[in-house]
Amino acid sequence: MTIPTYNYFDGRSRGEVSRLLFAYGGTKYVDTRDPFPMQDALREKTPFGQVPYYVDDEVQIAQSVAIEFYLADKLGLAGSTTAERAQILQYTLLPNDLYGPYFQAFGPQNQEALKKFATETAPRLFTKLEALLVKAGGKHLVNNKLSWADISIFNLLDFFHQQPGNLVEALNGFPVLLAFHKQIGSIPQFVEYLNNRPKTMF
Amino acid sequence: MTIPTYNYFDGRSRGEVSRLLFAYGGTKYVDTRDPFPMQDALREKTPFGQVPYYVDDEVQIAQSVAIEFYLADKLGLAGSTTAERAQILQYTLLPNDLYGPYFQAFGPQNQEALKKFATETAPRLFTKLEALLVKAGGKHLVNNKLSWADISIFNLLDFFHQQPGNLVEALNGFPVLLAFHKQIGSIPQFVEYLNNRPKTMF
Repeated sequence: MTIPTYNYFDGRSRGEVSRLLFAYGGTKYVDTRDPFPMQDALREKTPFGQVPYYVDDEVQIAQSVAIEFYLADKLGLAGSTTAERAQILQYTLLPNDLYGPYFQAFGPQNQEALKKFATETAPRLFTKLEALLVKAGGKHLVNNKLSWADISIFNLLDFFHQQPGNLVEALNGFPVLLAFHKQIGSIPQFVEYLNNRPKTMF
Repeated sequence: MTIPTYNYFDGRSRGEVSRLLFAYGGTKYVDTRDPFPMQDALREKTPFGQVPYYVDDEVQIAQSVAIEFYLADKLGLAGSTTAERAQILQYTLLPNDLYGPYFQAFGPQNQEALKKFATETAPRLFTKLEALLVKAGGKHLVNNKLSWADISIFNLLDFFHQQPGNLVEALNGFPVLLAFHKQIGSIPQFVEYLNNRPKTMF
């Protein structure tokens, strides 16, 4: 098999969970980090005119969560039963519900909207997430073992750590989530990846 | 097993693909069609404070696409190999990329944005979708058999047929997509469901 290519911009955003999965599996891949905005030649090649876009000898896949599923399933991290797969999938779909309002406020630097996001929108969801994690035993979100759900929610929490304006303060009062972020981030493959990834604004 | 409950508002929006899957399987379920905005008692019960929310004896699932996966996989419509599952999933994730800009324009009745959506955003994606469908043989999106992908994209095309302002005109010039919409909509379980579903604005 030739080395797979992962097309995405030079940012974390919708691309980072897949990169974490590549890192976890030790998979060699081409991380294109394409210029923004998207070039026409690339748009032509992709299924829906969008990145991220994954291609290997076997498949072409669009949509970030579908690519993540493909990588995670090959690593045994996407669940085995229908119920387990669905439980994992619900967590991997959740982050976009926070990225949407965040970037709507961050783009135009709407300070009032950013404050509402950090003090209301995010903590409301974190309250739910922390309760689910506690109920699941505190270490892993689904069935007491590492899954794509953990990696996706780790990346969401990591996003709060990376963004400017002390966004990480939205996690004050959520010690179980903070411990989870530290625990997943301590997996050796992630330590190495996180220490060496390019520094980007998003 | 007790009858499953599907909590969602009295609208199609993020709820309709699951309802189509229930209809396809002939599954009895409680279709709550809850009042909008969401009541606190319901919000408490849901994993993330959101609907749709599915519950049966075995699982509780949030996030529309995760619920759809659960229903589709039980019906054998979510693919069998990792590659096939990923290919199907990419289509089921796609509709939200159109609903987002549509509702952003529809809510405030921004006529210029609605026109741009109908004449640029949607046709650009339909060009890609029609090419993919033609390449796949014209009848089904993935591997020449009915899947959740077909049902989700059928529902996206049906959305264009249902919305006011002649949104369906965005499909002019896409005969293969229009034939596909007609073909999937002719599956007997869907005919019955579509003829009898409540008429709602979204």
